[in-house]
Amino acid sequence: MRKAVLDRFMKCNILKVKKREAMPVEKKVILVIVDGLGDRAVKDGKTPLQLAKKPTLDELAKKGSTGLMSAIGRGIIPGSDTAHLAIFGYEPQTYYKGRGPFEALGVGIDLREGDVAFRCNFATVDENLRVIDRRAGRLKDEGAELAKSLQGMEIEKTEVIFLPSTEHRGVLVLRGEGLSPSISDTDPHTSGNPPVLKSKPLKDTEEARRTARIVNEVVRKSNEILSSHPLNKKRKEEGKFPANIILTRGAGVYQKVESLKERYGFSSCCIAGSALYKGVAKYVGMEILKVPGATGRIDTDIEAKAKAAKEALRKFDLVFVHVKGTDNASHDGNLEEKLLMIEKVNRLAELLKDEDAYLIITADHSTPISIKRHSSDPVPVLIYGDKVRRDEVKSFDEVSVSSGCLGHITGVELMKIIVDLMGCGHMVGS
Amino acid sequence: MRKAVLDRFMKCNILKVKKREAMPVEKKVILVIVDGLGDRAVKDGKTPLQLAKKPTLDELAKKGSTGLMSAIGRGIIPGSDTAHLAIFGYEPQTYYKGRGPFEALGVGIDLREGDVAFRCNFATVDENLRVIDRRAGRLKDEGAELAKSLQGMEIEKTEVIFLPSTEHRGVLVLRGEGLSPSISDTDPHTSGNPPVLKSKPLKDTEEARRTARIVNEVVRKSNEILSSHPLNKKRKEEGKFPANIILTRGAGVYQKVESLKERYGFSSCCIAGSALYKGVAKYVGMEILKVPGATGRIDTDIEAKAKAAKEALRKFDLVFVHVKGTDNASHDGNLEEKLLMIEKVNRLAELLKDEDAYLIITADHSTPISIKRHSSDPVPVLIYGDKVRRDEVKSFDEVSVSSGCLGHITGVELMKIIVDLMGCGHMVGS
Repeated sequence: MRKAVLDRFMKCNILKVKKREAMPVEKKVILVIVDGLGDRAVKDGKTPLQLAKKPTLDELAKKGSTGLMSAIGRGIIPGSDTAHLAIFGYEPQTYYKGRGPFEALGVGIDLREGDVAFRCNFATVDENLRVIDRRAGRLKDEGAELAKSLQGMEIEKTEVIFLPSTEHRGVLVLRGEGLSPSISDTDPHTSGNPPVLKSKPLKDTEEARRTARIVNEVVRKSNEILSSHPLNKKRKEEGKFPANIILTRGAGVYQKVESLKERYGFSSCCIAGSALYKGVAKYVGMEILKVPGATGRIDTDIEAKAKAAKEALRKFDLVFVHVKGTDNASHDGNLEEKLLMIEKVNRLAELLKDEDAYLIITADHSTPISIKRHSSDPVPVLIYGDKVRRDEVKSFDEVSVSSGCLGHITGVELMKIIVDLMGCGHMVGS
Repeated sequence: MRKAVLDRFMKCNILKVKKREAMPVEKKVILVIVDGLGDRAVKDGKTPLQLAKKPTLDELAKKGSTGLMSAIGRGIIPGSDTAHLAIFGYEPQTYYKGRGPFEALGVGIDLREGDVAFRCNFATVDENLRVIDRRAGRLKDEGAELAKSLQGMEIEKTEVIFLPSTEHRGVLVLRGEGLSPSISDTDPHTSGNPPVLKSKPLKDTEEARRTARIVNEVVRKSNEILSSHPLNKKRKEEGKFPANIILTRGAGVYQKVESLKERYGFSSCCIAGSALYKGVAKYVGMEILKVPGATGRIDTDIEAKAKAAKEALRKFDLVFVHVKGTDNASHDGNLEEKLLMIEKVNRLAELLKDEDAYLIITADHSTPISIKRHSSDPVPVLIYGDKVRRDEVKSFDEVSVSSGCLGHITGVELMKIIVDLMGCGHMVGS
């Protein structure tokens, strides 16, 4: 009996088992996630957010609720994929199955349960399969053309799907029986002309051995096919690196999960430039909107994104807007560019603040300019909109919001708060 | 399959299973733990930290990140051993097996898996085994000599090891098959001439019954041997209490654990006066440095400790410095002495602040002078060094740091933050 009562309680508690009827939400939400926004004291003891000109963000901080967030938990360094999963309400401990499936979903592959997906690079190797350039000189638009030549492979009764992504990037999907994601990368990840690695099983199972074998054969064949591709002959003649092999990494298996709509009853959509974020969004059931000018880079068209978000708000209950340029700037150690991107985010907030919706602005993780990598430093959160508590915080930055009224939350907790603001939560008890 | 991925994730998540290659850390760390530093409002509504003169600690608070810490969790009263375990990153719930093993490691016994260790006191009993003085009049240096007479016992095929510690303290280790730590103390812990207790099994197992029997025999024999010891005859002639028995408490079994080096890849060392702290440090794989003048008392030589820490920084990635006097002062209810010790800590910070390392200053627990015992009140944490966020906090005390940008963390979370600062963390996801 006690277990039954506990089960019933847990159903409410995790806010996911009880299905909601399709009904209007109390209030819609625009959720802006600014990638790698959090930072450390990079200049004059101040973080980029403390240095940047961002009057609108500060105005919203003054009128809204603020706090700090550690997407996965304190002291834990989040990846972009796991942090987004957490903020969307899906504990990475349960839902993260490797990056490959997100990339595959992001480029538009309709994954099936059990598919094993990989991130890939087009790369340049010499005749001894030593890697000359992991990015084949950063391809521009040739990826699509080259990818066509890799279609239609079947190895050991396994369907091989390959799609191009941006620049030198692509996605490989293996579809069939008896596959395993427990295999190692063929991408050596290092400089200095290392040899292409042989994928190895990471578990002592027939599935892992078989999958490693198939991947090695795909990589071998890609080299065979791409080496004689006319586009590569042309690149060579132009003195460019030929894209004569694909290298695989980030193997993951796809498992269908309950969507946001199924969990909470609200509809949602995604406005993002990069495949990964579209992929995570699609994984949780968001509709992916095509926004020309959303590049996932510093040159992204903020006005176009804002316009798309406003339009999307008519149709969807939650509109997720992703801004990537801040993270790129941090990985490059470029303060000036990060400040510029923060000004763009300020402009985005200015364009969105008067919508009839809660405007929530946060980041997935910190990428301090001083270390050019993700860190566990918590990120600021801001909730602006109808009747939220106004704390004493007057600036939207890591230090000021640490005394905000939201306190210090996790990504999963933020989604619970959002669900409640939307009127889609379930009371625990009565 | 799902379990494997989860395992892989958890390995990253708890930051402990994935082994790091030996490689330089991004930045070194000096971790100063000031025992029992936290307090309550003892005078004029102020805590000792608020009353003390500590300009350097305040300067570092101004330039660094601050917050509060509850080593094990909010509202939990930590022991010194469990708090240190937690701050070193080892959840006490999993890793704490009783105090005995730490004391044994601290006095230099090379424990083996399965050894059962006890803290001991030399005490004074009358002919009816009633305790006249639990500390045998606080021995000075006679412990070493007396301990020699207890060597070489073997009871029920169990090796009996006894080593002296400071003053009236010692450590007993039982080594052999079929032992259990689940037995009660022989130390009555009370005043008023109570009888020496018989150790009893706390579990209904043959191992527990057997171990209790052996301990009772060790205590009986110690009384037999020590009663006729020449040193005790001399003490009696001088009108002092004879140290004519050993009393056992804090039984614990030793289990080898993964070291900090194995977990995170960084080397570490310990500068401490008291056996317990050396023991916990050794348990997690720190090298114990001998620092003459580090007494574990109020008379500890801070200049010597600072010098040793600076030198250690050349060889080790993390240098742990323990300061004990604050806790002693609190247990004695002596405000003046606690203020003096805080000034010593201020001097230590002054000597260490310019090193090329993060300087982290915190406490294991609060020992409020008003109650002369450990309490669950959280303790202040300060992280000073390269590019850390500067919050608005201007004084290093319990109240000021409660609005600091670190928020309120646990000991295990502090170690995760330290590991990330050192560049030894693993990203969860990608």
